Amino acid sequence: MTNFKLTIEYDGTAYHGWQRQKNDRTVQEEIEKALMTMTGKKVTLTGSGRTDAGVHALGQVANFHCNTKLTPDVFQKGLNSLTDRDIVIRECTQADETFHARYDAKSKTYNYKILNRLIPAAVSRQYVWFIRKKLNISAMRSAILHIIGTHDFKAFEGAGSPRSHTTRCILNANLVEQDDGYLLFEIEANGFLKFMVRNIVGTLADVGHDKITPDDFKDILLSKDRDQAGPTAPPQGLFLMNVRY
Amino acid sequence: MTNFKLTIEYDGTAYHGWQRQKNDRTVQEEIEKALMTMTGKKVTLTGSGRTDAGVHALGQVANFHCNTKLTPDVFQKGLNSLTDRDIVIRECTQADETFHARYDAKSKTYNYKILNRLIPAAVSRQYVWFIRKKLNISAMRSAILHIIGTHDFKAFEGAGSPRSHTTRCILNANLVEQDDGYLLFEIEANGFLKFMVRNIVGTLADVGHDKITPDDFKDILLSKDRDQAGPTAPPQGLFLMNVRY
Repeated sequence: MTNFKLTIEYDGTAYHGWQRQKNDRTVQEEIEKALMTMTGKKVTLTGSGRTDAGVHALGQVANFHCNTKLTPDVFQKGLNSLTDRDIVIRECTQADETFHARYDAKSKTYNYKILNRLIPAAVSRQYVWFIRKKLNISAMRSAILHIIGTHDFKAFEGAGSPRSHTTRCILNANLVEQDDGYLLFEIEANGFLKFMVRNIVGTLADVGHDKITPDDFKDILLSKDRDQAGPTAPPQGLFLMNVRY
Repeated sequence: MTNFKLTIEYDGTAYHGWQRQKNDRTVQEEIEKALMTMTGKKVTLTGSGRTDAGVHALGQVANFHCNTKLTPDVFQKGLNSLTDRDIVIRECTQADETFHARYDAKSKTYNYKILNRLIPAAVSRQYVWFIRKKLNISAMRSAILHIIGTHDFKAFEGAGSPRSHTTRCILNANLVEQDDGYLLFEIEANGFLKFMVRNIVGTLADVGHDKITPDDFKDILLSKDRDQAGPTAPPQGLFLMNVRY
């Protein structure tokens, strides 16, 4: 059995997230269907982790085992022609037999894009959270310092996800100001809980709106209580950028 | 009668272009419908020019006359709430009584975005022409030099457009290499013929593919014969960037 590693870009707008579901269209299912067409076999794809409905990826990673004479190059071309244009296999390589896209992931990086100005955008509006009211960026940056390092992120976890514990290590997090009112929140961690980035961003927006202080943000983290945190930021601003192994 | 000037951004994906049509949804019609809702009157919007079906704009300009007590600020907010999110009024100001969005335009700038690499993009694929085969950029740049200045652009004109003559002056044109295989063709002229940018880009792509030389490109321009030119580049890479008055 050959172990194939895929690096996948997708526009999540039309999908109910990564993971296969009974009744909804998902990225995993679309690629597995294409693998079935190419190989005639039922192939199971292991992703580095789930992404929520409407969330995008530039560098999701997945692997699958298959007894086949098809080469990585043939898989890449075939999958790109069989899937819709909103899914692109950026790379397909032969991986070590033991490589596991989820277990072997050392860290993941997500970006969250905010547009903060008076007038929204028409072009690329599907890739950004538009916030009209001017955000207090220096307060948001002070708050971000509190999440760097190893913490229990239970306060920022969405309900109903299976996990053994809620402690994660944030390796890097910062907020970059770009042209025309765009803000980029970058966050790298050894792992993420369900809705964790979007709940952090939603709570950071509360800081940016001066509804809570950076110290309040720290207290929310320490409280381990989801009810203390802010709203879940909408999915369309979120991008899984890459997975490090 | 007050004369209002609008600066408009739109994602052209869902529209049959700018200009009002009998059976198709257009940007002009959507804004005129919203103006009717706001004022109770039939208001005619004059655009700086048409854009084709599927073409985008970051800075289309239009004006309308209306006997109203509504302020520019109220029009901007009202139109932005009444139109879909793929149309955004970026500015609304009171213009000189004689201002005419089409007749007074001194120049317009269009951008055309190409993605030239082996693997297409999933994210933002609706804003780019994907070309897999490596383009000869220096040959394309040599060809571009031939269109700068005043020329008869009949060879690059689409059929069926009303115009008194086909001579236009290209003030500026160049091809910029960006990150990740993106190429940006920028062109500013005192006016454009129907399909002119897309026909130029399609013919430049023939140069980039070494199907024709920069000198052939010049001969096509001089021939004034549409049949000599290359294919019309697809609409989704084209953006009307701004109109200068």
